[in-house]
Amino acid sequence: MAKPIGIFDSGLGGLTVARAIRGALPAENLVYLGDTARVPYGTRSAKTVVKYALGCADRLLDYDIKLLVVACNTASGVALEELQRHLDIPIVGVIQPGARAGVRATRSGRIGILATAGTVASGAYERAIRSENEATSVFAQAAPLFVPLAEEGWVAGEVPTLAARRYLRPLAEADVDTIVLGCTHYPLLSETIHDVAAELLGHDLAVVDSAEATAVTLAETLHADLAASGPPGSLQILVTDLPGQFGSAASRFLGKPLEGLDIRAIDL
Amino acid sequence: MAKPIGIFDSGLGGLTVARAIRGALPAENLVYLGDTARVPYGTRSAKTVVKYALGCADRLLDYDIKLLVVACNTASGVALEELQRHLDIPIVGVIQPGARAGVRATRSGRIGILATAGTVASGAYERAIRSENEATSVFAQAAPLFVPLAEEGWVAGEVPTLAARRYLRPLAEADVDTIVLGCTHYPLLSETIHDVAAELLGHDLAVVDSAEATAVTLAETLHADLAASGPPGSLQILVTDLPGQFGSAASRFLGKPLEGLDIRAIDL
Repeated sequence: MAKPIGIFDSGLGGLTVARAIRGALPAENLVYLGDTARVPYGTRSAKTVVKYALGCADRLLDYDIKLLVVACNTASGVALEELQRHLDIPIVGVIQPGARAGVRATRSGRIGILATAGTVASGAYERAIRSENEATSVFAQAAPLFVPLAEEGWVAGEVPTLAARRYLRPLAEADVDTIVLGCTHYPLLSETIHDVAAELLGHDLAVVDSAEATAVTLAETLHADLAASGPPGSLQILVTDLPGQFGSAASRFLGKPLEGLDIRAIDL
Repeated sequence: MAKPIGIFDSGLGGLTVARAIRGALPAENLVYLGDTARVPYGTRSAKTVVKYALGCADRLLDYDIKLLVVACNTASGVALEELQRHLDIPIVGVIQPGARAGVRATRSGRIGILATAGTVASGAYERAIRSENEATSVFAQAAPLFVPLAEEGWVAGEVPTLAARRYLRPLAEADVDTIVLGCTHYPLLSETIHDVAAELLGHDLAVVDSAEATAVTLAETLHADLAASGPPGSLQILVTDLPGQFGSAASRFLGKPLEGLDIRAIDL
């Protein structure tokens, strides 16, 4: 059997990344680790996030993975270098792909970032975008309420629209023409985010999904000798805790029911 | 120096309980432990919460506490018995006091509970209320969005009002006359919750704050030989992680600035 791709996230939101990878590279076997016992990472210190990320990566190495996807924006922002020091397989985070897609999409060179408070504070997207194109102006806005809204399934209607208006006003005032969704949960709200931003800006804009961008980068990264081909690959899901509403949340992020999937609770 | 009272919570929300205890028993020395590295407990399995609760209690025993307050509703719901088995000091949770205050406040015998999904699923408030008065009807409603709203400081205005309308409609349809706030974060939203519930019900109602109720129970529990007297006691704060917005969130829950407080980050 072809070696799998390992994917980890602080929780279940990274299943949006697994879903995008499945779409772009259907033959790959995927092992997804959601650190649901310690979710969320976004409110924790960098030191703690690095420790957790190394623990997740170590566990995925047991599955003989050929490549590691860090599907968590917080961990991608603070733990990528440390992971690269410890692992001798390729590592792909979600920030650089999202940043690159944002730079490709913008016409005006003014890019907005929506992310958790932790990711915004890390400045990771600004650095990644400037490394792609120094002439770009970046405006980052924390949107912490979008995470529970996505988890509750409140992705359209009054409450998410009002929250989006509040979070998007500063980005509209900065006159961005592109918004990068810098949190794995936010793609569930992308329609509301797009429509509210277009309304505030008075014109259309590009909303870039980091999960999709990461899948594209991954397809480019996998050289001929690494890429799997043939029938559809497997998806195994590991979680460090199995909370009550696991099933409904996981299938919401994955975009399909969980039936037939191999789901295991592990200790970390 | 008089032995301190130990208080623990999954995060900073339990500072609303510390604040109420400080108000009711000003001479007591308090040691507060917020497990900020593993917050929230509400989305975790009972087994994991019990493990975390025992870890927090063990650490507080190092401070020679005379009594332990479990300021976390989730932990009070699933870990109290296990804690009582392991510790030989009095233990006070937040659920029984809140339940008792709710039973005292109701006239119609119809009580609503607002809590996290984990607390609602545990059925802990129903059991506690029925143990106080079997004839009571209890209606529990999960209100997960209230936690990030409290943390963001969005406690009044459109977004919390709309969220409250959505969560309170089933309780209004059940025609409750009392609502118990079964999560340490919710007291910050109590005005909005009260006003929206009164609007939906078409009449006034009692909103019971578990933090205040716990402080009252504590004052009753402390016998003459246990209670401290004299000048204002100290408040020491231990946290398992020091996230970026610690200061603003902590002072919001505590209801005052943090200046002069002894705050330490510890490992658990």
